[in-house]
Amino acid sequence: MKNIIIASTSTVHGTDYLEYLLDELKVFFKGVKTILFIPYARPSGISHDTYTEKVKEAFSKINKNIIGIHTSNNPVLAIEKAEAIFVGGGNTFVLLNQLYKHKILSVLKDTVNKGTPYLGTSAGSNICGLTIKNTNDMPIIYPPNFNALGLVPFNLNPHYLDPDTTLKHMGETRETRIKEFHAFNSQPVIGLREGSWLFVKGDSIVLKGPLSARIFEQNKTPYEVQPETELNTLK
Amino acid sequence: MKNIIIASTSTVHGTDYLEYLLDELKVFFKGVKTILFIPYARPSGISHDTYTEKVKEAFSKINKNIIGIHTSNNPVLAIEKAEAIFVGGGNTFVLLNQLYKHKILSVLKDTVNKGTPYLGTSAGSNICGLTIKNTNDMPIIYPPNFNALGLVPFNLNPHYLDPDTTLKHMGETRETRIKEFHAFNSQPVIGLREGSWLFVKGDSIVLKGPLSARIFEQNKTPYEVQPETELNTLK
Repeated sequence: MKNIIIASTSTVHGTDYLEYLLDELKVFFKGVKTILFIPYARPSGISHDTYTEKVKEAFSKINKNIIGIHTSNNPVLAIEKAEAIFVGGGNTFVLLNQLYKHKILSVLKDTVNKGTPYLGTSAGSNICGLTIKNTNDMPIIYPPNFNALGLVPFNLNPHYLDPDTTLKHMGETRETRIKEFHAFNSQPVIGLREGSWLFVKGDSIVLKGPLSARIFEQNKTPYEVQPETELNTLK
Repeated sequence: MKNIIIASTSTVHGTDYLEYLLDELKVFFKGVKTILFIPYARPSGISHDTYTEKVKEAFSKINKNIIGIHTSNNPVLAIEKAEAIFVGGGNTFVLLNQLYKHKILSVLKDTVNKGTPYLGTSAGSNICGLTIKNTNDMPIIYPPNFNALGLVPFNLNPHYLDPDTTLKHMGETRETRIKEFHAFNSQPVIGLREGSWLFVKGDSIVLKGPLSARIFEQNKTPYEVQPETELNTLK
């Protein structure tokens, strides 16, 4: 039975890394001693080691050990044997490319579908969707394709941002970008604001956190859903 | 001799489409009667026809005719015979994908290198760089690769935005994204603020407009260059 947290962000403004989620993670990772961390997204280009140290520090607060997948000689086996998995944020293109390069996308998908607890934040959440076509990241690496884990039957836009009508900047709003997506693609997109997450348990997909989320469906006006909404009919 | 305007944006806040550039374009397109417009980037997913109408209206103010390349049966010939070319903004992935699909990337490159005047705004500027790896756009379509026209020996980041220290949003700043790019790529990137453009004339590449631009080179601290700076040593 699937057991997944898909979080918009690792960090909410003014708090430490993962701090806003720690109470939730204590419950989510109950019984788990060691979490396999996948540091491939490398935020700001930091090394796998540096990133893993940062994650270790955060998880030490709830007494979890962290092992970076990059230290394993056999990443496929590391995933299959993991008690739980965390894929952190950074650049989604770099992350997806590494998953293809190490040939671990399908084993990761199978393992999580079989029930190994999975936490994703930001880029680690983007890859839970059908494709990474709604990432906000810069395409700094060309991956073999844009198809992702498909753990949920829609796409994610983490760090969702409402249009700021006071801005004088003329770049497209997030909503315009997703509208452009729907000129070429049919799957729904969930705009997850920072502080929100989806909790996937078996066939259930529920919005969690204090904020509403914005749902974009092709040929429909975008709409808001409130926390605790069941989203498993969206596809 | 190359003759190119690479503009950050089509529109500066509070003014009409292309208005801030019209005086410049009057000079740039002097002697040109008809401009070939490439509407492939489709901002907000609008149709090629609708987009072309919008461009026609703007250029009618300086007495230029516009023909949309999508109305031509032979886009290669349309490019070769064009008096001048304008590639408008929208989604860079969609634009590049269409250029590959219609097999016109190389003829466009050759034609502009031979001297046909080229105006690019936003996505139409992104493709002037070596690759589109510094676009801000959502990757809503998977193009055959990220290589672009390479009319200049670096990459462009149009709509460049300075970090806003008052923001509580935790998504990466533009500077962080470009720093991530340089963890994997070596070419320089020019962050072009809205209202700025590069004027390429033969071997010369000069920053124009009222604002400075931000230059990002691998393993260097980013720095500002002032209007009228010659940038042809950057590579």
